[in-house]
Amino acid sequence: MQKGNLYQTFVSHQHWNIFSLTTSSSLRASRLRPYTASMAASLRLPSLTSLFTSPSAAGRLRSTAFLSWRYRPRYSSTSAFSSQSAAASPPETEERVTRKKNQSDDRVVTPRSVDFNAWYLDVIEHAELADYGPVRGTMVIRPYGYAIWEAIQDFLNVKFKETGHSNMYFPQFIPYSFIEKEASHVEGFSPELALVTIGGGKELEEKLVVRPTSETIVNHMFTQWIHSYRDLPLMINQWANVTRWEMRTKPFVRTLEFLWQEGHTAHANPEEAEKEAMQMIDVYTKFAYEQAAIPVIAGRKSKVETFAGASRTYTIEAMMGDRKALQAGTSHNLGQNFSRAFGTQFTDENGQRQHVWQTSWAISTRFVGGIIMTHGDDAGLMLPPRLAPLQVVIVPIWKKDSEKEGVLTVASSVKEVLQSAQIRVKLDDSDLRTPGWKFNFWEMKGVPLRIEIGPRDVSSKSVVVSRRDIPGKEGKVFGISVEPAVLVTYIKEKLDEIQFSLLERAISFRNRNIVDVSSYDELKNAITQGKWARGPWSGSDEDELKVKEETGATIRCFPFEQPEDIKTCLMTGNPAKEVAIFAKSY
Amino acid sequence: MQKGNLYQTFVSHQHWNIFSLTTSSSLRASRLRPYTASMAASLRLPSLTSLFTSPSAAGRLRSTAFLSWRYRPRYSSTSAFSSQSAAASPPETEERVTRKKNQSDDRVVTPRSVDFNAWYLDVIEHAELADYGPVRGTMVIRPYGYAIWEAIQDFLNVKFKETGHSNMYFPQFIPYSFIEKEASHVEGFSPELALVTIGGGKELEEKLVVRPTSETIVNHMFTQWIHSYRDLPLMINQWANVTRWEMRTKPFVRTLEFLWQEGHTAHANPEEAEKEAMQMIDVYTKFAYEQAAIPVIAGRKSKVETFAGASRTYTIEAMMGDRKALQAGTSHNLGQNFSRAFGTQFTDENGQRQHVWQTSWAISTRFVGGIIMTHGDDAGLMLPPRLAPLQVVIVPIWKKDSEKEGVLTVASSVKEVLQSAQIRVKLDDSDLRTPGWKFNFWEMKGVPLRIEIGPRDVSSKSVVVSRRDIPGKEGKVFGISVEPAVLVTYIKEKLDEIQFSLLERAISFRNRNIVDVSSYDELKNAITQGKWARGPWSGSDEDELKVKEETGATIRCFPFEQPEDIKTCLMTGNPAKEVAIFAKSY
Repeated sequence: MQKGNLYQTFVSHQHWNIFSLTTSSSLRASRLRPYTASMAASLRLPSLTSLFTSPSAAGRLRSTAFLSWRYRPRYSSTSAFSSQSAAASPPETEERVTRKKNQSDDRVVTPRSVDFNAWYLDVIEHAELADYGPVRGTMVIRPYGYAIWEAIQDFLNVKFKETGHSNMYFPQFIPYSFIEKEASHVEGFSPELALVTIGGGKELEEKLVVRPTSETIVNHMFTQWIHSYRDLPLMINQWANVTRWEMRTKPFVRTLEFLWQEGHTAHANPEEAEKEAMQMIDVYTKFAYEQAAIPVIAGRKSKVETFAGASRTYTIEAMMGDRKALQAGTSHNLGQNFSRAFGTQFTDENGQRQHVWQTSWAISTRFVGGIIMTHGDDAGLMLPPRLAPLQVVIVPIWKKDSEKEGVLTVASSVKEVLQSAQIRVKLDDSDLRTPGWKFNFWEMKGVPLRIEIGPRDVSSKSVVVSRRDIPGKEGKVFGISVEPAVLVTYIKEKLDEIQFSLLERAISFRNRNIVDVSSYDELKNAITQGKWARGPWSGSDEDELKVKEETGATIRCFPFEQPEDIKTCLMTGNPAKEVAIFAKSY
Repeated sequence: MQKGNLYQTFVSHQHWNIFSLTTSSSLRASRLRPYTASMAASLRLPSLTSLFTSPSAAGRLRSTAFLSWRYRPRYSSTSAFSSQSAAASPPETEERVTRKKNQSDDRVVTPRSVDFNAWYLDVIEHAELADYGPVRGTMVIRPYGYAIWEAIQDFLNVKFKETGHSNMYFPQFIPYSFIEKEASHVEGFSPELALVTIGGGKELEEKLVVRPTSETIVNHMFTQWIHSYRDLPLMINQWANVTRWEMRTKPFVRTLEFLWQEGHTAHANPEEAEKEAMQMIDVYTKFAYEQAAIPVIAGRKSKVETFAGASRTYTIEAMMGDRKALQAGTSHNLGQNFSRAFGTQFTDENGQRQHVWQTSWAISTRFVGGIIMTHGDDAGLMLPPRLAPLQVVIVPIWKKDSEKEGVLTVASSVKEVLQSAQIRVKLDDSDLRTPGWKFNFWEMKGVPLRIEIGPRDVSSKSVVVSRRDIPGKEGKVFGISVEPAVLVTYIKEKLDEIQFSLLERAISFRNRNIVDVSSYDELKNAITQGKWARGPWSGSDEDELKVKEETGATIRCFPFEQPEDIKTCLMTGNPAKEVAIFAKSY
């Protein structure tokens, strides 16, 4: 699949501007702040491919009478969600499906509209994305879920290297004393630590922290590698597991152990560190738009919500299907907080000793949860083609044994044609299941396109192509030629269309659910309706905490895209330089 | 670079047969045992490219007078090896260079012949492969060392998927009770466990083991996923960190935490499990030969040396530069040991409940240590081209400023030519260091080829190419045209030659250092000389332990390649069906 540039499409069409499609807003600023624009320009991205081309082959409709089936999960027992829980304590909770699933045999997946959380957990089970580990709050990432994470890794890993970062690996055991060195860091993380106290049968002299994040050990090592300005910038990344002893857990979104990448950089001056922190949140933003079709809002965290130990935290905030916000990635300007705590110094060009300026930034397996909750529907997962482990599934259909061979021969050759065009394709030729069961199963798994091949298609040298994102007859096109060049072009165009369509739909949903507010009452009203509230803010930390207590919403960010005109703070009536976005969040 | 098939080259030429080049042996069997041959044939591998082609461009010699420098390490202080040690206890040792390094300023790297271990640690420091973590026995893998691991991952990951395995991820915290379920497993691993006893500020009800390996948690999950024979085989792999509280540690070779992949499979019958275990040791063997240029000997472990919980362990054993053996990868047939302990059952085609048959197999960051100790010399690391993070370094040379621009222009265009031919290349155009310093630095880093470009080369539209594996003038060829097609062909051929040459040299070294023995005295004599001893063995476990106590050598394996004729056990005089290889090991 060609990698088009959806993000730039939206920038150039002014579509992605979060203000442009909302109706109630007086904040229709189309000008971006200068540094945002310059950061966007500085990123190397593939050139734009046409996402607007329509299919060249027309289709005819035909009956779908054979599609009378009911969805049967592969493993219909609830056992996968009832594994024993070790080391659990009463106040800690883990979101698990404990309802009796077969109250109605009609659907095993709870409709999204009935119970969003139950729907989410059902999809994770039935799409075989993850399972619960034996220790409370831990998660086993199953092959299909892991393949989505691998697709995220593959894309970001290249971007990190292109922007000058090298991968490396730090030990996960950190002496407890390290954590205590940076005051706000220890305050933020000490309640969540897992501690190793016994090693090789002996009580350890010093407890070891299982890394919740690596700033401390990174700085300990940086002091040994950084001597002069010539050693800077030092820009590294690691792909690793991290542990945070969370009380409320939920698969992908918040687990006791999760996988992530953490970038760490050191610079010779604060401007470079700021530029790096901005660059990386921009890499994340483009990734979210272009690969995951998630129209995140990028911005700065409030002081209250800033990472423990950072001077500034930038974030990308995504709106889930239930309109709760998901913090999907963060980039921190750490200033000299850690370098002062650890003595990470360099000799500058004038021979003076200075502390380095640093950044760190991370995206985790939580992002997989974001994809599920952005695009999924009652039929299950819906994956953006660029991150989908399978982009096309081929389902051969035959009734008589005499038809089987012909159908399978064509199906195999279609598979080979697509595979050699670098399309990720699976031929589901199993004898054990009906076509209807397979249709449902692969819809549950969110595969963007399905190709159906029956005896009539074999005769007409064509196939039927169904889109996952458009249910029923409307998403089905008949008579697509199996001539390799035609078929490949058609499939690639459709995948691009779906990628674009998922993003467009998510943008539209997001914009419908952001309300511009100019008073606290309006804010409360918006939050009560389950929406996001955006309004001018210059309140204190106390004001912010009051909003949280009274509405359950927090400041998700001060978005980078801001109106030019000066406003009045919705809470205090004082002048406000910026609007903030408030929402309930995961 | 094209991926040729060195392994098959050696099989077809009978070179890799460990018996064919030894002189003292009466065991010149050229026939392999049937199942080994069939396993080798069943593996899909890229087709053989010619590794024997000689360079098309001839070279002339010229003076290397400007190469009068001394090696200066980038970070010459010893601070990188003197970080604080936390949680250390007296009897535990960590191999660190504590000697005063600058006794002689001549060489900072200890010669291999003087002290192999000090040489190894020096190379790791100066080639910037790894550093010590703050906790005793832990290791920070630096970018250059990590890039070698990434090359290993990239290759094996594809092979694992080709052979039907899916990646996934299991939690690293395992309830202590799991470890106790398989009797020999707990016996083998309990002395090495790291235990989490505190989480979120509270003492845990059940201690958690930080995974030393995942068979137990894998089985716990498999019981939930495996119901009938239709769910089998279940074939998965994970890339992960593991923790073993080792007493004696050494970077890469044995660290408290290390990175690895662990494959886990479940099958419906014992034959399939055995076939899988053999298939994976064969994947490792071919990887070692073809990618790492390490002529491992593959075979079966003795009962004493079998993995804790396995029925049979297969291994690849590599001979290091000091002639000690390194166990470089293992594949275990677990039989029903874990499935019985965890109740991992399936319903077979006759409706009967049966326990699954399982395998597990792993290669770790230890393999990086194997590469260092197989190929390195007094000038530092020497990397096989196929795994080298950089295959070519370009060093531009100028004396006058007027020459600089011309030289750098050609150097840049050479870089682009090679890069677009998928050759991993770096242009070292730094002003801070002399060409001589750079030569030494990149030799230390083991880059297979160096291209030198000076003003004279610019005039003659040619470059000088130096091989890392042939020191001095003999490895240097002048006048290689910069015409892209010529240059790319030449460089690719040279890289293939080096890959082949490293393997050939390692095979020759290995064969010179394996002695065939027919009595215990001969065995002791061989071990005393630092060699490997190979001889017929049918001794008891006690006999084996006696050899270990008296000579320090253990049975590394019963190699797959065996003589056909029946022999007499070197220890007992009883008939012996197999020869075993004895050696001291890491």
